[in-house]
Amino acid sequence: MSSIRRISRQVDVGGIKIGGGAPLILQSMTNTRTTDIPATAAQINRLLQAGCDLVRIAVPDEASASAFGEIRKLVKVPLIADIHFDYRLALLAIENGADKVRLNPGNIGSFDRVKKVLEAAAKRKVPIRIGVNAGSLEKKLLYEKGVSAQALLESALNIAYKMEKEGFYDLVIAGKASSVMQTIEVNRVLAKETDYPLHLGLTEAGLPGAGSIKSAAAVGTLLAEGIGDTIRISLTGDPLQEIRDGLVILRALGLKPPGLEIISCPTCARTNGDVETLARRLHSEFESIDSTLKIAVMGCEVNGPGEAREADIGIAFAKKGGGLIFRKGEIIGKTKDAYKTMAEEIWGLIGEKSKVESQMSEERKSRF
Amino acid sequence: MSSIRRISRQVDVGGIKIGGGAPLILQSMTNTRTTDIPATAAQINRLLQAGCDLVRIAVPDEASASAFGEIRKLVKVPLIADIHFDYRLALLAIENGADKVRLNPGNIGSFDRVKKVLEAAAKRKVPIRIGVNAGSLEKKLLYEKGVSAQALLESALNIAYKMEKEGFYDLVIAGKASSVMQTIEVNRVLAKETDYPLHLGLTEAGLPGAGSIKSAAAVGTLLAEGIGDTIRISLTGDPLQEIRDGLVILRALGLKPPGLEIISCPTCARTNGDVETLARRLHSEFESIDSTLKIAVMGCEVNGPGEAREADIGIAFAKKGGGLIFRKGEIIGKTKDAYKTMAEEIWGLIGEKSKVESQMSEERKSRF
Repeated sequence: MSSIRRISRQVDVGGIKIGGGAPLILQSMTNTRTTDIPATAAQINRLLQAGCDLVRIAVPDEASASAFGEIRKLVKVPLIADIHFDYRLALLAIENGADKVRLNPGNIGSFDRVKKVLEAAAKRKVPIRIGVNAGSLEKKLLYEKGVSAQALLESALNIAYKMEKEGFYDLVIAGKASSVMQTIEVNRVLAKETDYPLHLGLTEAGLPGAGSIKSAAAVGTLLAEGIGDTIRISLTGDPLQEIRDGLVILRALGLKPPGLEIISCPTCARTNGDVETLARRLHSEFESIDSTLKIAVMGCEVNGPGEAREADIGIAFAKKGGGLIFRKGEIIGKTKDAYKTMAEEIWGLIGEKSKVESQMSEERKSRF
Repeated sequence: MSSIRRISRQVDVGGIKIGGGAPLILQSMTNTRTTDIPATAAQINRLLQAGCDLVRIAVPDEASASAFGEIRKLVKVPLIADIHFDYRLALLAIENGADKVRLNPGNIGSFDRVKKVLEAAAKRKVPIRIGVNAGSLEKKLLYEKGVSAQALLESALNIAYKMEKEGFYDLVIAGKASSVMQTIEVNRVLAKETDYPLHLGLTEAGLPGAGSIKSAAAVGTLLAEGIGDTIRISLTGDPLQEIRDGLVILRALGLKPPGLEIISCPTCARTNGDVETLARRLHSEFESIDSTLKIAVMGCEVNGPGEAREADIGIAFAKKGGGLIFRKGEIIGKTKDAYKTMAEEIWGLIGEKSKVESQMSEERKSRF
């Protein structure tokens, strides 16, 4: 990553650092009932296994606040309590061990109430995220400025400055909209105007696919400009997809260590074999493997090995059928069974250790 | 879009302008055999219908060059000939009516050969795209600089300057890598160092999903910085997906008129209904409809209507079952059958005209 990162203050969320030069933190949020303690804990563990760094949980009522405490004991990751409307739920969440509290200035009510949360948070060194959403702005701001980057900015800064007056600086700020451009704009200004760590994401991005692409455009742009300390890719559905897509973005920008990557050409009139089917089979077979291998599937022998020179292992389909197998751009052999040879080569490179750890993928393999 | 766009020279590709303040141009490339004229023409027409502005076709041999000419007569869009290795194929493509020629400086050979292409191109006012790929750099550059943004830049500029000396300025430049950061870096410098229109994209991005996300991060970042005049999202598989994903990126950045958009919340412990299923059903039902409607599917009645205030029509699932239907944030009714009511409301808004035009979606509808 060649861009210079904006260095913010650092906050400590139960041992995980956000900002101040710390590695980018990837978040998600549970969508189970918080009061369903086993289901919520299980979802958190799946998120962690997929590469999630921090998990947020909605605390919509008292029962959820106390469940939050139970879940906190069951999982090995700091937990963030997501609070709307009722400041007393924030107090309860802090009592129950919340490592960070998200408040929405658009609906949390008078600052006198927020002050009580600040006191409790300061006592237990719990950072607060000011989470402003385009859809839940204070009525006054909404009336004056409409849904705009400026309104998001003012909403966040108004409450941050009030918190500072109370001596509270342990803040993360987020300004989210479902508009990519508004999200980019508000964060560019927040990055200039404050030294707080910034939490990036779109709200209501939608389903995986279009939602992932919009999120990548917004979050990717900001990260590539050096802005952002933690991200959440909000997608409708299983939150695991948020982690998969978030990792693609962070790895693509060099902000997380690389994982297994399959590159493949878009195919054209020169293509000799079924690039798509092979790429999909290898993806299914190896996607969950913990490895940094770069695998290439290329459609022609003329461009293929060169175009995928940096791949650890690759195949270029040949005009006369079958394919050329190459490593780091050097042809090492030919094959008539592209999938079998590639899978064997990749398993060989991954080594015996990972093979055992990945028995789970056997089931998927048998589908083919 | 608030960023200031870089204003480049403008080129004219068979009547379609690239650069110089023209609207962003969305490209794709056929992956049929070019010599299969009906299949290639059919694919081009599907791409156009999906929103593609310009289509590129590989011309790997003489038979393809002459097929290019036939296809050119069958479709209503300017066509770009993609040339590697053999400059004579570029000459043939120009003879056969190519509206633009893409040359790869990494494999086109000596500049004396390129000069012949320039002469033919100048005579017919055919612009040339210098398409540099990280995987097919000239050997000398590759040896000296490795695969790097600097090598991509030098490869592009070396040949551009030679072309300028010949009085040829009718150029588009592209510097592509499978690395997001290299692609961002080379284009940031090209944007500063030249006034040519820039064609953006990753090479070998891979399958839709991760490939789309990486492309959105690279292309989105550059576009949000005001850089880029035409884009291609290279994905393995049906090129239609390139157009769908490209449109999401361009619309998200305000660079294409909006289309039908479904926003939906990521769901959390507050969610009352099956947001994901409803969002997916509405997506299947309406994705191909030509409309600018913004549709919202929200999980709770407390945040929902407000968070999706800008939606033309939305639903917020209610605690007691069913959902509240809202328009522009105002609740207009209740429903027990979320899908039926939403589908009816949306068809109503779309109106009778579009309804007839979209009979094709009837089949999809019947699946539910």
